[in-house]
Amino acid sequence: MSDQTGGTARPRIQELSQKAKAGDLIGLAQLLTLLEREGPSSFEQLPELLSPHQMAFRVGITGPPGAGKSTLIGRLIAEFRAQGKKVGVLAVDPSSPFTKGAVLGDRIRYHEHFNDPGVFIRSLGSRGSLGGLSSSAYLMVRAFDLAGFDIVLLETVGVGQTELDIMNVADWVAVVLVPESGDSIQGMKAGLLEIADTFIVNKGDRPGADTFLRELEASMHLDPRAPSVPVPIMKTTATSGEGVKDLTTKILGEASRSGAGTWRDERVGLERLQAEAKALLRAASEREIERRTKTIQSAADFIREFRIKI
Amino acid sequence: MSDQTGGTARPRIQELSQKAKAGDLIGLAQLLTLLEREGPSSFEQLPELLSPHQMAFRVGITGPPGAGKSTLIGRLIAEFRAQGKKVGVLAVDPSSPFTKGAVLGDRIRYHEHFNDPGVFIRSLGSRGSLGGLSSSAYLMVRAFDLAGFDIVLLETVGVGQTELDIMNVADWVAVVLVPESGDSIQGMKAGLLEIADTFIVNKGDRPGADTFLRELEASMHLDPRAPSVPVPIMKTTATSGEGVKDLTTKILGEASRSGAGTWRDERVGLERLQAEAKALLRAASEREIERRTKTIQSAADFIREFRIKI
Repeated sequence: MSDQTGGTARPRIQELSQKAKAGDLIGLAQLLTLLEREGPSSFEQLPELLSPHQMAFRVGITGPPGAGKSTLIGRLIAEFRAQGKKVGVLAVDPSSPFTKGAVLGDRIRYHEHFNDPGVFIRSLGSRGSLGGLSSSAYLMVRAFDLAGFDIVLLETVGVGQTELDIMNVADWVAVVLVPESGDSIQGMKAGLLEIADTFIVNKGDRPGADTFLRELEASMHLDPRAPSVPVPIMKTTATSGEGVKDLTTKILGEASRSGAGTWRDERVGLERLQAEAKALLRAASEREIERRTKTIQSAADFIREFRIKI
Repeated sequence: MSDQTGGTARPRIQELSQKAKAGDLIGLAQLLTLLEREGPSSFEQLPELLSPHQMAFRVGITGPPGAGKSTLIGRLIAEFRAQGKKVGVLAVDPSSPFTKGAVLGDRIRYHEHFNDPGVFIRSLGSRGSLGGLSSSAYLMVRAFDLAGFDIVLLETVGVGQTELDIMNVADWVAVVLVPESGDSIQGMKAGLLEIADTFIVNKGDRPGADTFLRELEASMHLDPRAPSVPVPIMKTTATSGEGVKDLTTKILGEASRSGAGTWRDERVGLERLQAEAKALLRAASEREIERRTKTIQSAADFIREFRIKI
């Protein structure tokens, strides 16, 4: 199912992979673009992608727009860098300043990291092809693995099925909420509660923050969808940095507990492995379906397609 | 891609097809169930399905819940029957009384048609498999063609992409609105405006009906999404039957203009033909993807799958 570019893509993808492994971020950027374009056939061209030496710890950061996810991610980057960790970010949230290209903006002070080879930020355009977004996410985190990143942060708004699918890529998921959004457990979008490993009440300096936190805690006991062991709740104020150190410690603890830093296939259980396979198979077959659909130019073509090919 | 039942399904599907063609509605019901289960591989087992002798005129009836679509459909059935037309209904709306099995309810007086071999109603469960719902709709309308139906009414709520996809099955689409729903063109869900061949303002006896109709007319001139030739607007009161005769005449006029009653492939332009092919190919490949995903039971299986198969 490799397309016409397959012939020339192989040496190119391998060259870019070498560059990315040597710490060349422009090489990594080009590799990610190529993976997005080639889709799952990238595995043929770069079999190494199927089992990199080590695997980054993948942290999902999700929550409604305006919850301060990007500011929080900016803070987390600084903390991880202070501890010598290489950090990658994949932003899928279309409202994210990362996605909008505003990564150099003052607000999140990303420019501190602009010349830092230990930080790489990439936004994933919502190109909307069936299963395409999550399959790209799966391929890209594998490229971060190849390039020796320790942590990959995945940012989504967590509304649609695609966003929830992308959280399947993550080893650990933080759902970021804010007091004023009125997101109690009751009002929470289906799926968000199920994927949360921790809740983060951000903008914790707002007047209603503590009340909201207690309500969240209380309502979790009542919700039939909530797991039997309550999901921990942390409080941060991303703008001032309050609580971010605790969150960093928590994440690094989870990372070391899970054996991040080595390639640990067992960390990715069967369910996640199958979810990844399904997303990749779908992306591959979607390309094939597009191709076959275009060959249908008449009712006779239609009949030929379905009489023979199914 | 035929599954294990393929061997025994062929005689069964052909037997049911013979029954359906002979006017046996129980045979038709069983045929539809089999088509839903077998998916696009039904074409292999029943090649006749690829080009029936004649093609029903397919009328999409879509609009928000509570717009009175089912009551309207009940009225339309009576009108079409009075003119000797065989009428099929495929209801995809989960809130539809048809779908809920309430077809015998007093309100829509469907029981009038219970022993009438010229009426057949079927609901399409939202079984949620990728592309599955619209591919089932495509297969089922072809079965109505085989069984010699003149008109097929497709009922959806017209919200998600799936519902809009199903409207692609239709030759002609009526979008049903009600005065009190406040659905002006401005507030209309993306896609509904694009698919409407006619708007129906139902519950036309309500006080605000005429004002709403004029607003709809006016707003259509302002909306950039609106086609250059304004979409006609009709007024009905499904509960009393007011306006339903006009709608019936309109539909039958469209049907005869389009050459319904013969198999007219040219009626289905290239775009719709390709949309049908895509829905069917997706449904077929989704079955294959499910199968292949289940064979992945370890990281080694995963590597094998993507190293060789893509």
